[in-house]
Amino acid sequence: MSSAVKQQDAAPLDLRAVYAPIEADLAEVERILKAQLHSKYPLVDEMVRYGFQLSGKRLRPALLLLSAKAVGEVTRDHLLLAAVVEMIHTATLVHDDVLDEADVRRHLATANTRWNNEASVLLGDFLFTHAFYLASTLDSTWACQAIGRATNIVCEGELRQIANRGNFALSELEYFDIVAAKTAELCACCCQLGAHYAGADEETAERLARYGRGLGTAFQIADDLLDVVGDEGEAGKSLGTDLEKQKPTLPLIRTLERAGTEQRERILAILQNGAADRYRQLMPWMRRFGAVGYARGQARSFATSARRELVCLSKSPALESLILLTKFVVLRSH
Amino acid sequence: MSSAVKQQDAAPLDLRAVYAPIEADLAEVERILKAQLHSKYPLVDEMVRYGFQLSGKRLRPALLLLSAKAVGEVTRDHLLLAAVVEMIHTATLVHDDVLDEADVRRHLATANTRWNNEASVLLGDFLFTHAFYLASTLDSTWACQAIGRATNIVCEGELRQIANRGNFALSELEYFDIVAAKTAELCACCCQLGAHYAGADEETAERLARYGRGLGTAFQIADDLLDVVGDEGEAGKSLGTDLEKQKPTLPLIRTLERAGTEQRERILAILQNGAADRYRQLMPWMRRFGAVGYARGQARSFATSARRELVCLSKSPALESLILLTKFVVLRSH
Repeated sequence: MSSAVKQQDAAPLDLRAVYAPIEADLAEVERILKAQLHSKYPLVDEMVRYGFQLSGKRLRPALLLLSAKAVGEVTRDHLLLAAVVEMIHTATLVHDDVLDEADVRRHLATANTRWNNEASVLLGDFLFTHAFYLASTLDSTWACQAIGRATNIVCEGELRQIANRGNFALSELEYFDIVAAKTAELCACCCQLGAHYAGADEETAERLARYGRGLGTAFQIADDLLDVVGDEGEAGKSLGTDLEKQKPTLPLIRTLERAGTEQRERILAILQNGAADRYRQLMPWMRRFGAVGYARGQARSFATSARRELVCLSKSPALESLILLTKFVVLRSH
Repeated sequence: MSSAVKQQDAAPLDLRAVYAPIEADLAEVERILKAQLHSKYPLVDEMVRYGFQLSGKRLRPALLLLSAKAVGEVTRDHLLLAAVVEMIHTATLVHDDVLDEADVRRHLATANTRWNNEASVLLGDFLFTHAFYLASTLDSTWACQAIGRATNIVCEGELRQIANRGNFALSELEYFDIVAAKTAELCACCCQLGAHYAGADEETAERLARYGRGLGTAFQIADDLLDVVGDEGEAGKSLGTDLEKQKPTLPLIRTLERAGTEQRERILAILQNGAADRYRQLMPWMRRFGAVGYARGQARSFATSARRELVCLSKSPALESLILLTKFVVLRSH
């Protein structure tokens, strides 16, 4: 957790407590994942099992199952679909590893570069295709369509993100729109699947989808913030990675929007100077324009909007957990 | 076309003639692909349209449509599914670009490495997910299941292939098995989809699937052969690429199987000596053991087996084309 965020909220949330209403269901999802993700070929089996361990929090299965439980009962279909969305999320994580140019460079310096890079692409594809196969074992095409559409939007969002590398004229709204696609859409899909397969009416399912979208957006803004203010040890990645990739995120977009013409040019010069400590050179500017606090405020605002979508639901432990998650996502992002 | 192959068969086949019975259907598939593969975001749109141009022969849509026409009528479902299998094939092509380590190295030397590498992974994912979405717009989950299962086997086959890099003890049967998975399974799936959605009985659909599997295996053996004997200009890639990647293919496997203990050690020494002209050093050994002719014979043998599966079908121009394809795949492989 970022120390800056920690200061504002003294008591960190325990995710296990949030997941308590679906503890047994999540355990069953783990069993399904274990049973599904294997290969009779030892080396393939090793890779697939490795991929399965990559993800951590099981946030997407939890969203699906909590949404189900908040409106009805968790069924066998829910458990399968929870495994499906986790496979898809893991596939995108595995492919993100390939996307990391810095990482590729480091790998090239080692002996087994090719293996890592190629294995990541194929492993991601294996997980994607297995997820789609599993979704197609349900009775109707409903889940396949929802998942196919959502994952396609995710990919488009990621493509838009790389298309906007180095585009420091990206507006805040465009940034939110990309985040909504690349991160929030799968969360929205999870909530909608959970609600739909628990027999929710269309309006409730739509509301839960909007909850997931708001939550996912807040989550991603907070995640991007970690790159600026985060604790390296806890976030598990180095600061300024987004900057190194010329990826405009909210604190930077805000700084540039608030800067005057001359200041803007000085900031852009830092962004383009290629210095190793660009990140440190930028921090005073972000501080001057209160960009970190602003981004945190935006994350909270999306989380609050998400929470408001839940008013239609009756009181239950699952509802309580969905509410707690809106706090969790702005506190932690890894 | 490889000159070695050309010598044996004087008259090259015209693929347009083979596709004649489904010419109008293929044109409609092109329209569907064009209508489906776009994005409202200009840069994404450019990438997606680029991906769409990558593939050439439209072999997989042709297999699906010819199989349909050989047993019944081509329907709207067939046309959609033909677009789906082409998208999936293109996705694997795009991801193969990422897999090419030599290529990655070359890209790293250029300015826009990251763009190319990252864009390829995401573009492939975009095509995969769009294909699955499109398949899920059909009435039942039948096509989704068949396609999900087949593409998962394809990925497993590709993973097995990279797991066997540098494994020069790979047996011929293991090689055939990997080829059947990574290349032939999607061809089998195309034929089965074509037959199934044209109302074929299960046995006929199964026979056509086996036809596709045999044809795809023959195609891949011939493709691997091009790496050894191919015409660089026509094949569009340099000779010895598989060797450079330490990928054991049939001519090499055969050479090693026929070599005596001492000869085998000398061949393995060439494979491991890292010399730029390893390929040329190996050629005399392949020639000595007739490995090229043997591999060509195996390709023909798989093509013949494929052809035999067609005996259940009544005479028609589509059947004629399916038969011609068994000749085509061993003549050309690009």
